[in-house]
Amino acid sequence: LKIGVIGAGSTYTPELIEGMLRRRDVIPVGELVLMDIDETKLQIVGDLAKRMVRREGSPFGVTLTTNRLDAIRDASFVLTQIRVGRLQAREKDELIPRALGFIGQETTGAGGFFKALRTIPVILAIAREIEEHAPGAFMLNFSNPAGIITEAVLTHSSVKVIGLCNGPFGTLKRISAVLSAPENELSMRYFGLNHLSFADSIQHLGKDVQAQVIDGMAENADETDATILRGLGLVPSSYLQYFYRKPEKVIEQQAESKSRAQQVMEIEAELLRLYRDPSLAEKPKILEQRGGAWYSTVATALVASIVSNKGDVHIVNTRNRGAIADLPFDCAVEVAAVVDGRGATALVQGSLPLKVRGLVQQVKAYEQLTVQAAVTGDRNTAVWALANNPLVGSFTAATTLVEKLLEAHKEFLPAFQ
Amino acid sequence: LKIGVIGAGSTYTPELIEGMLRRRDVIPVGELVLMDIDETKLQIVGDLAKRMVRREGSPFGVTLTTNRLDAIRDASFVLTQIRVGRLQAREKDELIPRALGFIGQETTGAGGFFKALRTIPVILAIAREIEEHAPGAFMLNFSNPAGIITEAVLTHSSVKVIGLCNGPFGTLKRISAVLSAPENELSMRYFGLNHLSFADSIQHLGKDVQAQVIDGMAENADETDATILRGLGLVPSSYLQYFYRKPEKVIEQQAESKSRAQQVMEIEAELLRLYRDPSLAEKPKILEQRGGAWYSTVATALVASIVSNKGDVHIVNTRNRGAIADLPFDCAVEVAAVVDGRGATALVQGSLPLKVRGLVQQVKAYEQLTVQAAVTGDRNTAVWALANNPLVGSFTAATTLVEKLLEAHKEFLPAFQ
Amino acid sequence: LKIGVIGAGSTYTPELIEGMLRRRDVIPVGELVLMDIDETKLQIVGDLAKRMVRREGSPFGVTLTTNRLDAIRDASFVLTQIRVGRLQAREKDELIPRALGFIGQETTGAGGFFKALRTIPVILAIAREIEEHAPGAFMLNFSNPAGIITEAVLTHSSVKVIGLCNGPFGTLKRISAVLSAPENELSMRYFGLNHLSFADSIQHLGKDVQAQVIDGMAENADETDATILRGLGLVPSSYLQYFYRKPEKVIEQQAESKSRAQQVMEIEAELLRLYRDPSLAEKPKILEQRGGAWYSTVATALVASIVSNKGDVHIVNTRNRGAIADLPFDCAVEVAAVVDGRGATALVQGSLPLKVRGLVQQVKAYEQLTVQAAVTGDRNTAVWALANNPLVGSFTAATTLVEKLLEAHKEFLPAFQ
Amino acid sequence: LKIGVIGAGSTYTPELIEGMLRRRDVIPVGELVLMDIDETKLQIVGDLAKRMVRREGSPFGVTLTTNRLDAIRDASFVLTQIRVGRLQAREKDELIPRALGFIGQETTGAGGFFKALRTIPVILAIAREIEEHAPGAFMLNFSNPAGIITEAVLTHSSVKVIGLCNGPFGTLKRISAVLSAPENELSMRYFGLNHLSFADSIQHLGKDVQAQVIDGMAENADETDATILRGLGLVPSSYLQYFYRKPEKVIEQQAESKSRAQQVMEIEAELLRLYRDPSLAEKPKILEQRGGAWYSTVATALVASIVSNKGDVHIVNTRNRGAIADLPFDCAVEVAAVVDGRGATALVQGSLPLKVRGLVQQVKAYEQLTVQAAVTGDRNTAVWALANNPLVGSFTAATTLVEKLLEAHKEFLPAFQ
Repeated sequence: LKIGVIGAGSTYTPELIEGMLRRRDVIPVGELVLMDIDETKLQIVGDLAKRMVRREGSPFGVTLTTNRLDAIRDASFVLTQIRVGRLQAREKDELIPRALGFIGQETTGAGGFFKALRTIPVILAIAREIEEHAPGAFMLNFSNPAGIITEAVLTHSSVKVIGLCNGPFGTLKRISAVLSAPENELSMRYFGLNHLSFADSIQHLGKDVQAQVIDGMAENADETDATILRGLGLVPSSYLQYFYRKPEKVIEQQAESKSRAQQVMEIEAELLRLYRDPSLAEKPKILEQRGGAWYSTVATALVASIVSNKGDVHIVNTRNRGAIADLPFDCAVEVAAVVDGRGATALVQGSLPLKVRGLVQQVKAYEQLTVQAAVTGDRNTAVWALANNPLVGSFTAATTLVEKLLEAHKEFLPAFQ
Repeated sequence: LKIGVIGAGSTYTPELIEGMLRRRDVIPVGELVLMDIDETKLQIVGDLAKRMVRREGSPFGVTLTTNRLDAIRDASFVLTQIRVGRLQAREKDELIPRALGFIGQETTGAGGFFKALRTIPVILAIAREIEEHAPGAFMLNFSNPAGIITEAVLTHSSVKVIGLCNGPFGTLKRISAVLSAPENELSMRYFGLNHLSFADSIQHLGKDVQAQVIDGMAENADETDATILRGLGLVPSSYLQYFYRKPEKVIEQQAESKSRAQQVMEIEAELLRLYRDPSLAEKPKILEQRGGAWYSTVATALVASIVSNKGDVHIVNTRNRGAIADLPFDCAVEVAAVVDGRGATALVQGSLPLKVRGLVQQVKAYEQLTVQAAVTGDRNTAVWALANNPLVGSFTAATTLVEKLLEAHKEFLPAFQ
Repeated sequence: LKIGVIGAGSTYTPELIEGMLRRRDVIPVGELVLMDIDETKLQIVGDLAKRMVRREGSPFGVTLTTNRLDAIRDASFVLTQIRVGRLQAREKDELIPRALGFIGQETTGAGGFFKALRTIPVILAIAREIEEHAPGAFMLNFSNPAGIITEAVLTHSSVKVIGLCNGPFGTLKRISAVLSAPENELSMRYFGLNHLSFADSIQHLGKDVQAQVIDGMAENADETDATILRGLGLVPSSYLQYFYRKPEKVIEQQAESKSRAQQVMEIEAELLRLYRDPSLAEKPKILEQRGGAWYSTVATALVASIVSNKGDVHIVNTRNRGAIADLPFDCAVEVAAVVDGRGATALVQGSLPLKVRGLVQQVKAYEQLTVQAAVTGDRNTAVWALANNPLVGSFTAATTLVEKLLEAHKEFLPAFQ
Repeated sequence: LKIGVIGAGSTYTPELIEGMLRRRDVIPVGELVLMDIDETKLQIVGDLAKRMVRREGSPFGVTLTTNRLDAIRDASFVLTQIRVGRLQAREKDELIPRALGFIGQETTGAGGFFKALRTIPVILAIAREIEEHAPGAFMLNFSNPAGIITEAVLTHSSVKVIGLCNGPFGTLKRISAVLSAPENELSMRYFGLNHLSFADSIQHLGKDVQAQVIDGMAENADETDATILRGLGLVPSSYLQYFYRKPEKVIEQQAESKSRAQQVMEIEAELLRLYRDPSLAEKPKILEQRGGAWYSTVATALVASIVSNKGDVHIVNTRNRGAIADLPFDCAVEVAAVVDGRGATALVQGSLPLKVRGLVQQVKAYEQLTVQAAVTGDRNTAVWALANNPLVGSFTAATTLVEKLLEAHKEFLPAFQ
């Protein structure tokens, strides 16, 4: 089994290595190929990876490369965790919208939109290489915005793609904590789009505990969030705060002394400093602050389900095919799905609750327009896509945001030149 | 044939009388019962109506009443044109949102929402009286917001309701003017929701002229509207400006020296002064400035199609039943429909164009939540309904707007007390 | 306006000529091109056509040709009324199934299936010529089985096709007769597939008369048909008898002394004998016995609605697009539709009544498989198509029927060699 | 945990006891209540059950009762395995249709239809008792025809019902045998209705082996079945032979010297004779010939998945909710589903392959009409239901079959009197 990791210079990679080592009885990895265009980071992260694997008796090989095709050719899994334009671009995605009075965020709103425009062309190039050089391989994508990226790959390639996010796992963890019940005793509906998903009809060993979960969460929330939770009757992804509390969030973001991108840059620098230590051969504790907790759990559990054909339920981004009745048949959704050797098959979730139906439909239209904009490089389509984003909400605002951000990111948006 | 008019004190009523007189060969009206709760206005308008009918040789009788049931009992058609809270309430719908930085408008946004909350209970009471005292009668509703009112009646009664608006007819007129072609030579797709509808695939005698219409309209528009029209490729209802150009519209509205409600109050006072003239026996010219041009055309043409079973195509608010593939099967939509003795049957319109799909779906969710809020009188549902309105766009803003407007309109919102 | 008629040697053609002459004020025909591959029949029928036109003062030109492209090039309408293999093939379609214990009929069952296999390749060749030489022209198809032919053209070409049948008009006539009410005072739901369609919710000037119509028809029917009508609660196309009373119909057909094809051959010979009379310049009365009554009415009314953009309601075979909720979105259905310059747009009909839903869905699957079989010439697909026909009903029977009929018709089924 | 078994006098019951004992670590049964209206059989089977449980150290109690409510009250699971009219009625279901030239079979065709008519009223009475006396309990139904019974309970009660059949498990076994691969290494689409279902897109550890499975099965089949398998490209339930090879099957059945019911009566007599032996304390080997192999496996595995919340994939009869795109949203389907504490949630299966789509839709319409007929006791609805069954295929035939079988079974069809 060959696994290729694109964007392996990420400081998350040790998480992944740890996961692969922990599950080595289930996932028979032969070779792990770590690829990045940033040779320096790749070397630092890759060396740590090698030391981690060696320490566990070298159950599989680790190869470093800057040649993408080397990671893809004949792989069974290609993991994509890229960040086109790096954290410098992220900082622009955060700061430019804020300066104009809008949410500035990595994956939602105008920031997420531009991240999508930068990322989709690269991901589709990878997809084409998989089609040609690793037919039948799974693409497991962690690159954000993960839902839109999945939509792009499902629409424009034949690659078997599954989009992953640690968000839903975090939601399960929160529910589990509220109930003081282990995750494997819980069952629920789970539906929506990436960073716009909801848990409903939660049961603990067959007993309906939805109201108890909502109450528990509301008690730990501020008054507005408590009202939202109780009124909604669903457990929303944390990203819903940007939609429900937009005016306050804009003010809060504008008041921040340091962007999240800046913070992450500092953490990354610190992590890379630690990684360089030749005596370090395990994942450092501080990595968990980076925001990607459970990343290895989610990713390696998914690979395990596929290679062992286990048919476990995971919450992933995959093709709808009627799972959510109110969304297009062929679009990407984030839902509970059975994962086995055939990939992910969504579980039927029925109709969206009325209070969230319109929002999810509106964001799906935004996502599909975003893919069109990225693929065509058409500025007008980009404006319409962004005008469809509820955090922007007008053609007027979208026009301004597209102009500013297109200029700021032009280096990474060749299709728009 | 008995026709009851609820809200007949409206200054529009002479339009309707004129229409009925003009089509008297097709519509065999026996008695027209004019009902209003405002006795003064009813008397003034009713007297003019009587003079108009008498002048044409009294082809049918005209009765005035303040008892609603007298207008409904055994009627074949009940026309509802009510304004709960009158223009005073409208002014609040316009001014209060503006003061908080939002669109303040009669039929859209927070203003339209509160108009719906005030109107739905009265309309549903009328519907129940029709069920009991005029079974089989058609309710033709002109009360705004016409789409939401239709949704409410379709959901909560068995009355055969058709919702009417002069907007689509205005759109046809504009298209006809651009092409210098008579309306009866044009055919097109027409779909959406009331005040959120679109013309597409326009043909003149079998020749596709969509691009030509767009170009013609763009040439007469300002630069932003021209860009919107060309990017959209559809002819939108004029109310789309509030969605597409929200930031500018808010500023524009805030700068207005006089609210539209105030202007209309002045026009109405002037109209009523004219109507009082016992020598006046026809519709005065100035009425056309009131905003309801073609009202009689639309209303009487519809009645004519029903009574003569002609099967003409009208653009009306009626049940979807698959006409627009992306909206709920049973909801109210504004579409081209065949009107005959059975009422209105929608023509299939296919899927919504991607650029408008999400917006229309989002607004439909808002509309359905609005009906729930009006029927239950539940404040929390009201906040969620308004949070789903794209002109409000957050739970935070909706909370504030509901609080202020609920207080301002409490007299007309007994269900919320 | 140029109109091309393919298969104009048909003895029906005088009907069409008469219709065009009667509507000449609405349909501004310039030239009518009559094409057939049978030069003898074309000459006889064509000469009569010319005499008929001349008698009315030659309002348009009539040209005869055996070159199909001459009829198609630059035409606005191409009328297709072909019979591949002529009545000799029809006789086989009738007799061979009967000899094996099955319904033998021109348009349904195994006979209709083979008629479709013979006709589809020719119709698709015509469609390709229209695409190239008369882009934008309407194809009005009368060739049977009209529903499957429409399905084929909608699936495999971009031509604007409308499929026509005089059956629905006959149903309206029967309803009108039962009620002693003129057709224009009736309104109803009308839905299904060609030769498998139903009228429901019939109203006379706004009054529900469905039960009255059913009762009236039941009174004139034998006991079984009366029970079927009352149980069904719908007015079915007469072809439903083959499905509902299959065992009796098989026995009845087997007992016939003369096939319908044989009868029609004799009528045709007689008609052609009459047509040859140089003094004849109008449609002879006897033509009405031929079975195509109202053919000219239906066809010319449709052309009139298109050229005058009138938006009348016709019952035609057109694309579903949600009109019948239980059938595929893109398939051909027979429904009430508005016809204007854009062609036919179906009216929403809702869900199929449960008693007929499965049958209509099963036959639609059969129709789509038939198109696949005709286009691919794949024998296995042909067997599966026919096994899906409820009048055949098993793979075993389909295998035998395909074998026998493929052999009998091989001359006209080159794709299967 | 209390488990009630309705119809526990069945000779299958020892299978179930064995299964419960084998899984006692996972399923914490406290009490098993065996109920039957046949006291003699209940005593024989119940005594054997008690000996079996005692032999294993009495991990749970076993109670016998003829009072249904005793088995239902406060149960967590109610297993229904009833046979209204016993094997005597089954024999009529087999013989009467055969004598008229139709398939005579326990679960399909006219026989299955009458079994449904007899069973549905009793099952719905049980469902009402569960609603009242064991709210929240699962009904696991094995009574045939299992799909129609599930449809009835889903339509006419709020009980959480799951319909079970050993057929799909048999199909997996056959696939597993052909590939010489363990079942847990296989994944596939599985969709349809009970006794009308199909496996598609079969993979062995991620490798597509559909063609290999088809080939392997075709090699072991007769020529016609091989042609059907290869043409279909799917693995069908064995009951499809009645549809695909109807003419041969009718002849085959008519030639049988002994009905299946008669054979089973003899096996049952022999089984009961064996069960009476007080030294017998385990399931006798001969039970496997009875036809219900894997019954305990399927049933106890399902209970285990629910109580342990494991989320395993089972193939069950449950609500569609979009899993099969071409069937009604709310109907019962037989599909792969995740089973956890919430019950069964179907996996999306997409659209039905065209070759089987119509048949499955037609049979679903038949099933829904059958439920209507059983609930209303309306003879006309019964005829229409049966006329919709493809093994009957006409109103004429249905009329005769309903008349004969209604008379034969009148004792067990009180609603029709």
